[in-house]
Order: sequence, then structure tokens, then C-alpha cells
Amino acid sequence: MTRRIDLVADLGEGFGAWRMGDDAALLDILTSANIACGFHAGDPQIMDETVRSCVQRGVGIGAHPSFPDRQGFGRRDMGLTADEVRADVLYQIGALQAFAAFHGARVAHVAPHGRLGNLVAVREDYADAVTAAARRLDPELIILAQDGMLADAARAAGLRVGIVGIADRAYEDDGTLVRRSEPGAVIHDAEEIRRRTVRMVVDGVIESRNGVLIPVTCDTVLVHGDTAGAVALAQEIRRGLEAAGVEIAPLADWLEPS
Amino acid sequence: MTRRIDLVADLGEGFGAWRMGDDAALLDILTSANIACGFHAGDPQIMDETVRSCVQRGVGIGAHPSFPDRQGFGRRDMGLTADEVRADVLYQIGALQAFAAFHGARVAHVAPHGRLGNLVAVREDYADAVTAAARRLDPELIILAQDGMLADAARAAGLRVGIVGIADRAYEDDGTLVRRSEPGAVIHDAEEIRRRTVRMVVDGVIESRNGVLIPVTCDTVLVHGDTAGAVALAQEIRRGLEAAGVEIAPLADWLEPS
Amino acid sequence: MTRRIDLVADLGEGFGAWRMGDDAALLDILTSANIACGFHAGDPQIMDETVRSCVQRGVGIGAHPSFPDRQGFGRRDMGLTADEVRADVLYQIGALQAFAAFHGARVAHVAPHGRLGNLVAVREDYADAVTAAARRLDPELIILAQDGMLADAARAAGLRVGIVGIADRAYEDDGTLVRRSEPGAVIHDAEEIRRRTVRMVVDGVIESRNGVLIPVTCDTVLVHGDTAGAVALAQEIRRGLEAAGVEIAPLADWLEPS
Amino acid sequence: MTRRIDLVADLGEGFGAWRMGDDAALLDILTSANIACGFHAGDPQIMDETVRSCVQRGVGIGAHPSFPDRQGFGRRDMGLTADEVRADVLYQIGALQAFAAFHGARVAHVAPHGRLGNLVAVREDYADAVTAAARRLDPELIILAQDGMLADAARAAGLRVGIVGIADRAYEDDGTLVRRSEPGAVIHDAEEIRRRTVRMVVDGVIESRNGVLIPVTCDTVLVHGDTAGAVALAQEIRRGLEAAGVEIAPLADWLEPS
Repeated sequence: MTRRIDLVADLGEGFGAWRMGDDAALLDILTSANIACGFHAGDPQIMDETVRSCVQRGVGIGAHPSFPDRQGFGRRDMGLTADEVRADVLYQIGALQAFAAFHGARVAHVAPHGRLGNLVAVREDYADAVTAAARRLDPELIILAQDGMLADAARAAGLRVGIVGIADRAYEDDGTLVRRSEPGAVIHDAEEIRRRTVRMVVDGVIESRNGVLIPVTCDTVLVHGDTAGAVALAQEIRRGLEAAGVEIAPLADWLEPS
Repeated sequence: MTRRIDLVADLGEGFGAWRMGDDAALLDILTSANIACGFHAGDPQIMDETVRSCVQRGVGIGAHPSFPDRQGFGRRDMGLTADEVRADVLYQIGALQAFAAFHGARVAHVAPHGRLGNLVAVREDYADAVTAAARRLDPELIILAQDGMLADAARAAGLRVGIVGIADRAYEDDGTLVRRSEPGAVIHDAEEIRRRTVRMVVDGVIESRNGVLIPVTCDTVLVHGDTAGAVALAQEIRRGLEAAGVEIAPLADWLEPS
Repeated sequence: MTRRIDLVADLGEGFGAWRMGDDAALLDILTSANIACGFHAGDPQIMDETVRSCVQRGVGIGAHPSFPDRQGFGRRDMGLTADEVRADVLYQIGALQAFAAFHGARVAHVAPHGRLGNLVAVREDYADAVTAAARRLDPELIILAQDGMLADAARAAGLRVGIVGIADRAYEDDGTLVRRSEPGAVIHDAEEIRRRTVRMVVDGVIESRNGVLIPVTCDTVLVHGDTAGAVALAQEIRRGLEAAGVEIAPLADWLEPS
Repeated sequence: MTRRIDLVADLGEGFGAWRMGDDAALLDILTSANIACGFHAGDPQIMDETVRSCVQRGVGIGAHPSFPDRQGFGRRDMGLTADEVRADVLYQIGALQAFAAFHGARVAHVAPHGRLGNLVAVREDYADAVTAAARRLDPELIILAQDGMLADAARAAGLRVGIVGIADRAYEDDGTLVRRSEPGAVIHDAEEIRRRTVRMVVDGVIESRNGVLIPVTCDTVLVHGDTAGAVALAQEIRRGLEAAGVEIAPLADWLEPS
């Protein structure tokens, strides 16, 4: 059976006159997009343009909700209650759904951004809040997450979960990520990232820093577009996967229920 | 045939720790609410609470989109393009739809706020932008407006239009409002407002400042809750209408297609 | 020697069309004002009006800097670095100094607001950041604080410190405040608050919940204006102090170097 | 006598994680900087870093106040009253003065940004508001402007005025700028801009589109840093002026009273 994978990146992360990342270049590489919804980045015009571009190219539309923190780009823990998180996430998904509806499409997935994205993996109340918001809005919504509380909560609620594979981080033998504070935690060599990505997708394994092969799930690969090098790497990853016979297609087209 | 009318007010116009108006008191009087969507007022928690309260009491939920102008409470003309207005309105209606969906309801109407509300009556490009946004999101949405460009555009697009009746302003003999800058333009006497409202709803006429009876359409009466006196007046108006045998019910339950 | 005291409250905490508290009533009671600087509340118009009113009545002008958190009213810990706090505080004091200068006055004190106000008492890096900002801007600035890290840092830097007395909270025998989560932590009885305030100011003691008399310093008494009851209590406190022969005067007029 | 000129550009126009223009490259070329003050761009950290860099390199510090319009980058007319403009400008200059004071320097000039910058040239009430704010804060402040209402008001108030020379726009024979809507209104050729700039500074003339020589005043030349080409052009202009024997120095060091 052909192995299938989704390629996703964060898009629409400008605000007003400011831009971030090379969205135009990424749109030729991706099959899904995490679109900023106005809380850490993005504004109605940018969301409108980004959704339109995604629809034109068949790129899956995903909401990228954040804490309400434009100045901190959603990277700060603001000490919100779970109920505040639920309301913030509802607001942002709903706003993006309006642009999707206007352009004749649907929001396919939800991928929490930044610090919210970190915290939903370890805070059950936040995981439940995001899950409840998504499920009530549309039970077909896919939750994009790494393994953790959000993935668990979403599966328990009957939502499909797309696991985001991480190829540019070093792993311990037990499958956990090497802490960022340790040397070698982040892999910078483009060729190595490309190789690890292909192996993760094709063989379902990743090599720990001690050479142990760890089984990993990966439904979508997160690529970046913030530098010229990042875009080139994303293209490399796509070509590597295609060369390995992997079918690259939007998650919503093929992801099975959890 | 029994005369029917809707009673509407602006709700949820706080932000963070600030509040404006007595929403709790108004909820016992209204059949519909114009709910702030975060651009001139309102935030996700307030929207969530306001929508929940409306659902509990059977009050119709309406979006009250504004220019993006919290500091100016949406009262400033910001020189936006029609395309910016379309995107801003999509964003706000979509956000409110999410709260309605979460609480098992639907957004029933759209009523532009403040300066945007003034401009859609006279700028065709803005009227078309709001109409296009609403129609693509939900062709069942009712547009709340006074007679003008927006009402015309919405009818032409096949949307239902609810005309907002104005009883606390003086009229010229030709049916136009006396300019605010003129003495007597705004009627402050509560008893007179109540009487004019009942007559407008029951008989479909309002008296000009020269005593001429002008035929007026009125599907919904806008009441206010920003002072204790305003709430008392709103209650008076409701009692006056009930005493006159008028049925008071949410617009979405009975408004015919235009 | 006549005992002297300052009476201070938070003023100018509206934003745009929203208001909070009865500033007009408080201005007749106070000798100093903590004026919001636009980060948790306040905007340039409100700051301008508030400073003008203070100058007209001889009320001392104080900066009330906050974390940049309008939606949370400055009550949320945003995880800022000390350097970010220093820059935020510089910005806010500077902005208020401009209004003071325009109206022919000077900013007399700095009193951190909300969560920042809590954290400067226990985080040395934040205390140093606020102290450094204030001292470089004007070595005559008084720091308003409760006992804690900020008071210590300010004294060490040669700034005058005005200790804020707390009369509406219960005390343990060791002079610490009873935790808010415990019953009886906050005193609500107006008469009792008035009595405790006068005793604190006149005798320099406050009674613990076990009846132990604790020596306390108090250069200024913080009063509130958010309800009609609060304003009445503030008036009561002022009258009580005057009846006890206490001279009520702006801190900057009489506070000695620490 | 040696001809002297100032070179100025807009700096610090990022916000949070976003950046705009190549500030580092410009700092090697400029003698003065218009620093965003948080209303259209800039935040306290960016202002702090920008002021520190300017002080380190001897670049003159200027406030670049704007309408409160981050999403529109200060390019929208918001219909503010003159009193609102005065308060907004006070706030922004004051905030920047705090950073200047912290780093041991002073704000040397004020240059209104964007739409505010356009309107102060033609609206006397706005020109008076900016002038009043600047004069009360510091009578040594220089007003940077093109010929127009602001320059007139500032001179009348006894402030020094630095006229900004425009070399990349076509001129009519009467010395007015060719309207932007007309073809050829903006000159894009770098070599031509460099030549026109040098001639404007050295000879005090600029050639109209019909070849007429027009006398122009120019105390400072505005350069840009938003593209690699813009920075290269700015360097070219600096070299061209130096080659022509012009002394390039901060405005505050040599500008005479008007």
C-alpha cells in the first residue's frame, strides 16, 4: 500500500503592513496550511487572501488559534482559564470558517499555535477546551497535534487526529525529545533533516541520538517558510518524499478515524 | 390579523473588565439582541456569556459587526475599502456563529454598528460588501437596517430585511429624520416615545414635527439599556405594545421574505 | 508632632467609551492619584483629562504602570523578562510625564498596578527594573509600594518610598496578610475599615485576627471608587482621619528620604 | 561656507516579532532617525533598542508620532479632533523621551508619520496641536516637515524647523509636487535620485519636469531602508553628498532658529 503524507506549514502570519515568511513559495509545496486567525498574527484581509490562495491550489485549510497575544506572537503563557481558552478557540475557528465558507470551502483542521500548542499537550483542561470547541463546531474537524493530552482528548471525543511528525529534533531512546537546552537538541543540517523525514514517513521510525530506532507516527510533516533556506529545505523534503514513492495529499482526503 | 413586532437592543458591549449597559435587565425585555463581535466592543468571554443568555431566554442572536476601532467604539470613519469591510464583517459574523453553534443556536440577523451602520445606508459599495458577506455565510440571515442602500442591496440579493423603527427622533413631513443639529431632533420624553412607538407599530404611522402623519415600516424597535431610565423606558415600550395587543416575538420566527 | 498622611486611589481607568470608578467624586477626597498609563487602562484623552483635573485640585500625579494587558486589566502574569518590564515601565512613565509637563506639573510617584504590583514585591529582577526606570527618569520620583522587594530596591537606589497601608485585610500575628483564600481575609465592614485605618495612621498599629497589635508603617492609604459604597467609605476615612487631627497632604510635600 | 545636511530615515517600525526595513544598515548611513512610538509601529523593546543604537552611533533621536492605527500603519485618516491629536502626540513624544533619558540622551526632533504627516501640512488645527505639544514638552525640539501649515505654526511658536527635501518626486514649474496619480510623479531611477539630491543640497535647486530650475530648501534628506535597493541608494546618496563636499551632521548640531 502506498504511504501517504500531508505537508503543512504556518501561513498568513503577517499583520497589517507586516509580513512573515514566504507564503507564496510555500503554497506550491504544501497540502495543508495552519492559518493564523488574528490573535497572534493575521487580520481579516490576510485571512481572506490566504484562504483564497489555499482554495485555488487545493491546499487544506486549518485554523491556527492562539492565546490573544499579538505583541508576544502567542509565545507567552497568559495564565488563562480553560473556559477562556475554549471561548478564544471558538472565536478564532469561527472567524476562519467564515472565510472558508465565503470561498466555497471548509476548515479541515485545527492546530493550536505557539504556547497554546505546547500547553494543550500537557494540560488536560486546555486539551478538553480545544476539543470541546472543535467538536461542537464541526465533528469532521481534524485535530493536528503531537502525541499528548490534546491528541488523547480528541480521540476520546471521536475526532480524527493528525499526528505531526518532528524530524529536526533529536530523540532520547525512550522516544521523548531531547530537551532544547541540551546541545544537539535541534538538528540544523538540511540534508539530515530530509533523510530523517523520509525515513520517518516511509519506515515509521526515527533514530535516537544513541542510534536506537524508535517507532513514530506521522500523518503530517511541519515545514517552515521563514527564511530562504527553510523554503528550499521544504522543497527538498517534498522531493525526497516523492522520490521515495510517498503520495503527498491533504490530510482531510485520506486520514482515517482514530 | 395580530400585529407582530421584534424588540432589539445592543448587548455584550463590554470589553475585558469594562461593562456598558444593563444587559441582564434588557434580556427580560428583548426578543432579539445585536451582539458586539470584538471589533468595537465584546471579547470572546463576553460573547460566550451573552450568546448563552440569549439562548436560555429565547432571545434571537444577531451579529453587530463594526469597523475595527475599539478605542473609538466603532464611531469613526476609518476610510476602509469595501473589500476590507467585507473581510471585517465575515470575520465578525463567523466568530459569533461559532458561539451560537456551541450553544446549539444560529445567528439570526446582522445589524452593522455605529459608523459602519450609518455608512451602509448611503454607500453602495459598503452595502454590497455586507450583503455579500452575509449571503455567502447563510442565506437565512436577516439584515437589520433602516431604509437605505443596505436594505435595498439585501432585498436584491434575496435576503430578508428587518426594518428598524425609530420613535425617538423627530420627522420632517417628507418622512426623513430631522437633522441631529436642529433643536428638537431627538425626543427625550419617555411617555412620548412610548406613545409614538405604539402608534408606529400598531398603525404604521409616525407624526412629523408639523403634525403630518407619515407611513413607516417597522419590523423591530431598537431600545437602549445604557441608563436606568433607558431600561425603564424599554419596559414601558414593551408593556405599551402588549397592552395594544401587539405580539412581541423574535424576528426570525415570523419575518416574511422581502 | 502632627501625624501626616496621603490619600491615594487609582484614577483614569477607563478606555475609549468605557469608564471605571467615580473619578470626579474621588478627586474631592484624594491627595494623590495613581493614573493608568494606557497599558491596562487609560488612553491619551483620559490621561490628559485626569492630569488636568489633578493639577486643578492640587492632587499629586502618580504613574500606575502595568503589564501590557488591556483585556486582562493588567491582572495576568505574562511571563515578561525584567528587561521587558523596564522598557514597559519607562514607556508608561514617560507618557504620563508628557501630560504632567503640558499641564505645568510633574509626575510625583510611581505605583505599579495589578499583577505587576504583586510581583515587584517578590521578584527582585522586576523590582530592580522598575527602580532603574524610575531613577533614570527622575531621582525625585517616589515609589509607592507595600513592604517588599520594590521598597527595598528603591531605598537602596536612594529613591523615596511611600508605604501603602492596608486596613481592609486581616493580619496574622507575624504581620503578614491572611491569605485571600481564607475566610475573613478581606474586611468588608465600612465602620471597621475606617477605625482600623485611623488607628493604623495615628498609632502605627493594626490588630491581628488574634488580637495582637502589630506595628505597621503607612505613608499613604489606598481608597477605592468603584462603587457608591466605596466612595462613601473613602469620605468616611478622610473624615475619620481629620477628626483624629491627622494632616492630609500630598506625599511629595512631606515624605522624607528613606 | 560648507554646506551642511542631515540624513534621516524611519527606524524602529517593527512590532513584536515583526520587523520592517534594515535598521542596522541604515544606522551606518544616517545622522537622524524618526523612531516609531508604538502607535503605528514600534513597541517598548524596539524603542529601547533603537534609541540605544542611535545613542551609540551619535544618530539624532526623533519622535515619529502617528494616529493610533497599528493595523493600518498610520496611513488612515481616523477623523480625530485636534485635541485628540494633541493628546496622542504628547503621549508618544513623552514615551520616547523616557527612552532617550534612560540612555543619557534627548529627543531632538518630532516628525509626524503617515497620514498625520500629510494632514499637518494642510490642517491648521492639527498643525497647532502638534506644535503646542512639542513646545510645552521641550522648546528645543525641532519640527521636521515639508513646507506647509506645520512648518508655519512651528516657526510662529519659536520652534526650529527642519525642512525635509524631496528628491524622488517630480515637480511642477511652480514648485509643487506632481500628483501621485500622474505618470512620472515618482522617480525610481537611483542614479537620477542621487543626482537630484546632491543638486538640491548643494545648489538649492531642483529641476521641474519641464526643465525649470526651482529654488528649494532642504535641511534633511529622507532616505529609506525597506528594500536592499533602498539601502544601497541611501549609501549612494551619502557618498554623493560627501563627494560634493557637503558636511553630513545631525540637525540638532547646526540648525539655526527659524
